[in-house]
Amino acid sequence: MKKKYVLIVAGGSGTRMQAKMPKQFMELEGEPVIMRSIRAFYLYDSSVNIILALPSANMETWKQLCEEYNFEINHSVIAGGKTRYHSVKNALQEVKEESLVAVHDGVRPLVSEDTLINCFSKAADKGNAVPCVDLNDSIRQLNSEGNKALVRSDYRLIQTPQVFDSEIIKLAYKQEYSEEFTDDASLVEKLGFKINLVEGNPENIKITRKIDLLFASAIINKNK
Amino acid sequence: MKKKYVLIVAGGSGTRMQAKMPKQFMELEGEPVIMRSIRAFYLYDSSVNIILALPSANMETWKQLCEEYNFEINHSVIAGGKTRYHSVKNALQEVKEESLVAVHDGVRPLVSEDTLINCFSKAADKGNAVPCVDLNDSIRQLNSEGNKALVRSDYRLIQTPQVFDSEIIKLAYKQEYSEEFTDDASLVEKLGFKINLVEGNPENIKITRKIDLLFASAIINKNK
Repeated sequence: MKKKYVLIVAGGSGTRMQAKMPKQFMELEGEPVIMRSIRAFYLYDSSVNIILALPSANMETWKQLCEEYNFEINHSVIAGGKTRYHSVKNALQEVKEESLVAVHDGVRPLVSEDTLINCFSKAADKGNAVPCVDLNDSIRQLNSEGNKALVRSDYRLIQTPQVFDSEIIKLAYKQEYSEEFTDDASLVEKLGFKINLVEGNPENIKITRKIDLLFASAIINKNK
Repeated sequence: MKKKYVLIVAGGSGTRMQAKMPKQFMELEGEPVIMRSIRAFYLYDSSVNIILALPSANMETWKQLCEEYNFEINHSVIAGGKTRYHSVKNALQEVKEESLVAVHDGVRPLVSEDTLINCFSKAADKGNAVPCVDLNDSIRQLNSEGNKALVRSDYRLIQTPQVFDSEIIKLAYKQEYSEEFTDDASLVEKLGFKINLVEGNPENIKITRKIDLLFASAIINKNK
């Protein structure tokens, strides 16, 4: 298999958490969320190149946290941009060889090894892979008249890491920024590529609300 | 406000939980899930008429559980049908006066008082109300060519209770069963009524997987 990279994007200001500390730095069962996200990739494959995109304003804090927690997993830190798109675009400049490139939300610390295996294997085979899970609730679409019911089984919730052949993701990020690009797969799709869905893990939640931090703690404590 | 009813639907066989006990009877922090669901309505309004639709095969178990846990909230029990549609249709026969009728999943024990207030108030005013929350993840739609990205902010995840004017929900259930009816709102919508979305609460999760039981425990322990 090709050399692997993971771009961990941690650009959020944490306003939805109503906390002073950006959410990726918040402590989750003994260490900042983002350290756990990094470790998931390291434990899956210790040779993976880990690139962390952080807001410039948080770099010093991150350095201090790494010392405080004796965090010794090797990784590069680069300055993120004004949006997720710009952060990934910056981080892609560090990918200097043909490889498989995963883009992962810094606030998804509970991605499983199975999900990582599913994503990298499928991407090696098909050029891209995106993990997903079924919806647990009914879903409605808002429209100009109000809203309408949809058939739940036709939809999937999308997680990260989204993994791509390096040439494809670099080409995708040559497209100009648009608000319609909600994740990396949508950029690659815009180029005309079919997106390959693989099975994610339900524990792989995105920590954006206080309740998510509570859920993440519960999962970690159960697995102790 | 009109008289209130809640039809609590607990027909699932629990196969997704890989447990012998149907999931609505599984113990959650000291009592079966369904007792907590019933209590949420009782604490909101002790005069609400509570009708529980259970598979006939589980009625004796439920009776025994009520004795074992000294469960004393007054409620009627009726036999559910072969699908959720048929259970609600059966339960509606117990609604014998013009009223507001809530239909609630037995496995949503963590509905908040605010959600109940939002639903019943809006339904009293507009004829129906359905609680919803924003999506925390990106979403894709499966189609014949594969799948495609959607704009997340155009979608809402739907919870229960779904509350209706009794005349409207009874009329809706005169329609013949179809697989497209994924919830009560979709039946009412089919009649031509606009569905009113109100704010739900993120804790109001549907307990269908083992991980949901873990999440529910975490929420209850936090609020202790």
